Amino acid sequence: MNLSAHILRMAKAAKKASYQMALVSTAEKNRVLMQMAKALESRQAYLLKENAKDLATAVKAKYAAALIDRLTLNPKRITAMAKGLRECAKLKDPVGQLLETIHRPNGLLIKKIRVPLGVVGIIYESRPNVTADCAALCLKSGNAAILKGGREAIHSNKAIFKILKDELKKTKIPLDALQLIESTDRQAVHELLKLDEYLDVIVPRGGEELIRFVAEHSRIPVIKHYKGVCHVYVHSKANLNMARAITLNAKLQKPGVCNAMETLLVDRAVAREFLPSIVADLQKAGCEIRGDQATRAIVKDGIKNATAQDWRTEYLDLILSIRVVDGLHEAIEHINTYGSRHSDTIVTQDKKHAQAFLDAVDSACVYVNASTRFTDGYEFGFGAEVGISTDKLHVRGPMGLEGLTSYKYEIYGHGQVRR
Amino acid sequence: MNLSAHILRMAKAAKKASYQMALVSTAEKNRVLMQMAKALESRQAYLLKENAKDLATAVKAKYAAALIDRLTLNPKRITAMAKGLRECAKLKDPVGQLLETIHRPNGLLIKKIRVPLGVVGIIYESRPNVTADCAALCLKSGNAAILKGGREAIHSNKAIFKILKDELKKTKIPLDALQLIESTDRQAVHELLKLDEYLDVIVPRGGEELIRFVAEHSRIPVIKHYKGVCHVYVHSKANLNMARAITLNAKLQKPGVCNAMETLLVDRAVAREFLPSIVADLQKAGCEIRGDQATRAIVKDGIKNATAQDWRTEYLDLILSIRVVDGLHEAIEHINTYGSRHSDTIVTQDKKHAQAFLDAVDSACVYVNASTRFTDGYEFGFGAEVGISTDKLHVRGPMGLEGLTSYKYEIYGHGQVRR
Repeated sequence: MNLSAHILRMAKAAKKASYQMALVSTAEKNRVLMQMAKALESRQAYLLKENAKDLATAVKAKYAAALIDRLTLNPKRITAMAKGLRECAKLKDPVGQLLETIHRPNGLLIKKIRVPLGVVGIIYESRPNVTADCAALCLKSGNAAILKGGREAIHSNKAIFKILKDELKKTKIPLDALQLIESTDRQAVHELLKLDEYLDVIVPRGGEELIRFVAEHSRIPVIKHYKGVCHVYVHSKANLNMARAITLNAKLQKPGVCNAMETLLVDRAVAREFLPSIVADLQKAGCEIRGDQATRAIVKDGIKNATAQDWRTEYLDLILSIRVVDGLHEAIEHINTYGSRHSDTIVTQDKKHAQAFLDAVDSACVYVNASTRFTDGYEFGFGAEVGISTDKLHVRGPMGLEGLTSYKYEIYGHGQVRR
Repeated sequence: MNLSAHILRMAKAAKKASYQMALVSTAEKNRVLMQMAKALESRQAYLLKENAKDLATAVKAKYAAALIDRLTLNPKRITAMAKGLRECAKLKDPVGQLLETIHRPNGLLIKKIRVPLGVVGIIYESRPNVTADCAALCLKSGNAAILKGGREAIHSNKAIFKILKDELKKTKIPLDALQLIESTDRQAVHELLKLDEYLDVIVPRGGEELIRFVAEHSRIPVIKHYKGVCHVYVHSKANLNMARAITLNAKLQKPGVCNAMETLLVDRAVAREFLPSIVADLQKAGCEIRGDQATRAIVKDGIKNATAQDWRTEYLDLILSIRVVDGLHEAIEHINTYGSRHSDTIVTQDKKHAQAFLDAVDSACVYVNASTRFTDGYEFGFGAEVGISTDKLHVRGPMGLEGLTSYKYEIYGHGQVRR
């Protein structure tokens, strides 16, 4: 069978399975999640053997150390994957939740009920644990899932998938509810993105290039998880010790992730007091600093010039741009102009200005006096996440089980007709 | 200025205005809506004069009577438009609504707050009242709106827009929050659909062709309001008098709208009893019947043959296709295969089968013992609607003020950093 026909057959089977999935009981879903967790642990040797094949290819191809690290499975990471499935089993089942009840004067009773989306396609990159995480989230939210991982993790993904599928076979849950595209041909993604008759949503997880590719080629609605150009804004009324701790955390604790800070904004009133020591601390940690003219007038040494391009850049690295601003209004304008609508924080003791910042900054997550690093499904208490949506439609911010659902209206009558 | 630059300037101005719009108080929004309503009524002569120009063109171009009717403004319709604005003023303001509060163990307080989408583009066809309706809904939900009506209603739309804008000028609400594209060049829509940097969502309202055009060419997320291939399913345990009333209402009360029935499904067990009289009633009302083989075996005269193409067709006319089915399972499969996921109803006295139908039919609005004609923002108690979404993401079914909003997370800390 050619690739196009193969992907079409997968999508059709997933659609059919999705109708049955929507009716599977919570207990049944939780039971299989727990069994899957157990199987991942008990079949650790098999997983490590398959993962070793991917690692060997990666080493031979001289991939970057960071990529090889993301690819690597070890007993600790396998345990973490299993724990993820067990936690997913503990989460409240969103399906069937009554969201609203409307009683109409004509006697109609309207119930707004949470339902699965249907068929979810997830396209991701190197980390193999995404296979288990996303399978679990889709299963728990009553969706059929079609997964497509990166070619560099193909053996690991196939092994994880096989373990999950073997457990699914022991249940009454339709097998086609969980499918993995094993082809590493990019054409497979192209074919999948055409099938808007069968897939309800596509979630790309990975770098900006992957997401743009999917968004441009998909006929299926895409929930985008774009870049995070996140800001820390040190307001004139900030507790500067707190500002220091938040700045260092937001930049240094994990610079390669989307909720790390990329630009620091500092009120002119506190710039002379705050900038010299924070720049020294950051530089000591190996961080490159790019400042605007005002910043460079205060800290003269070792600071590069920041251009407008810097304000828009997600470095995902030990690089920080700094700009001195003239108060709240300019900070908000900077963030809404150059930011990516992900996560931004103000550090201030002034409650009125804090609220004005919360109201006016057009981002998914807006913070007062906390690090942007908290934008995360686990940190928000959602238990798990498919990613962080930078879209405004459907789901915004951390995307957990709820983000994998839609709703329907169930209307109960006793013969009502429209006059 | 060329068209491309002109549309770009409108979009940029709308984006800027949207940030201010999000902060306008409920009282201010309601006040201007009431003033706009009053102005539409007091400037009736002007409206009728401008509308007459569109009507003259339409008559000269020999447009269909139905289209000319949709174009026509008269004192009654102007009063209805004004009433719509007053009702919108009475609706609860969705902006700022607290949707959820999360207290995290680390002391973070996370508030999920309803916010406007930002800039909403609405592209619609002939009915000029859409200009007032959509302007009001966008204004009340704190969005900036860019409206683009059909060329046949251009003078009417410009007149309505002028009246609304004159009232806006008397307030502190930014003028660019309400804009009308006056060009009747289709290129204007093309240009608008590119501007995903400035528009947050596009809502096409109108025929299937318009919606497909927008969905195919837009870089901005589209909320689709596609066709309604709605079903009435008469179950073997139906009260046949009720089934009769619902069938006649769903088909005949307003055949040209998306929530009218297009296909009648009848259980084989009651087909002989139900079909002859309902077909006679429908034919008497001028309705053409297209039946499957089993239907034609029962009612022999005056029924055309229904093909698979009929099951997928939204007639929007006095035409009905009928199929005899072998029970609940076949009815559900028919609807999920051929329907458009809009509105479907089961007529039955069997509660278990009714619930199974509600659970399994994958449509925005699923009814028991009521006409599909109730799928409507007013009938659902939403006060007004932008349309009926057949999408599963973001908003499903009648799209009112809530559908014009997103949410953001506001996170309150006291110095928390991530460990």
